[in-house]
Amino acid sequence: MNKDFEPYYAVIFTSTHDENIEGYSEMANKMEALAKQQDGYLGIDSARNDVGITVSYWKNIEAIKNWKQQSDHLKAQQKGRAEWYSWYNVKICKVEREYEFQTSSSSDF
Amino acid sequence: MNKDFEPYYAVIFTSTHDENIEGYSEMANKMEALAKQQDGYLGIDSARNDVGITVSYWKNIEAIKNWKQQSDHLKAQQKGRAEWYSWYNVKICKVEREYEFQTSSSSDF
Repeated sequence: MNKDFEPYYAVIFTSTHDENIEGYSEMANKMEALAKQQDGYLGIDSARNDVGITVSYWKNIEAIKNWKQQSDHLKAQQKGRAEWYSWYNVKICKVEREYEFQTSSSSDF
Repeated sequence: MNKDFEPYYAVIFTSTHDENIEGYSEMANKMEALAKQQDGYLGIDSARNDVGITVSYWKNIEAIKNWKQQSDHLKAQQKGRAEWYSWYNVKICKVEREYEFQTSSSSDF
């Protein structure tokens, strides 16, 4: 374990959609672009099959609170609850350890 | 915020696949079934598009360590690195807060 590892935060957002999700993709893209401009934003991972999982990464809790209260994001959250999501769950997590694997290329390309 | 909230742990596993993933689905299903039998297992969320995200939930760090060292799971991890994954990242996280939204049905069905 790297002793220099500095903890940061992850927001795990899991959700299921209503049948009609008109306008959802555009809003999701807009919100992702907006999140990237926030202080303390570190990154995002996203995938959706039956359930959608979006994990966003933040420098600290303060950055998460600021993003949650960002005015355009507040409107998007409201629209999401009214129109797109049948269910969602939000988990605020402290990332305490991290490790990674990368294939070493065996070709000469 | 619920003052009775008891922190638990999440393992965020993000990955990208090699082109040939023969046998991967069977192994993933087998490992999910096996994880459910582990002490301290709480649940799992999984989705894959360009990137795969699997988040498993555990009662404490001890449960995560035990699962990481489980013998069949060790073999699966080795096979995953050798054959299926071009990259993966593992984040061990403490879930500190959580909240949920559920649509209230407006129909009489």
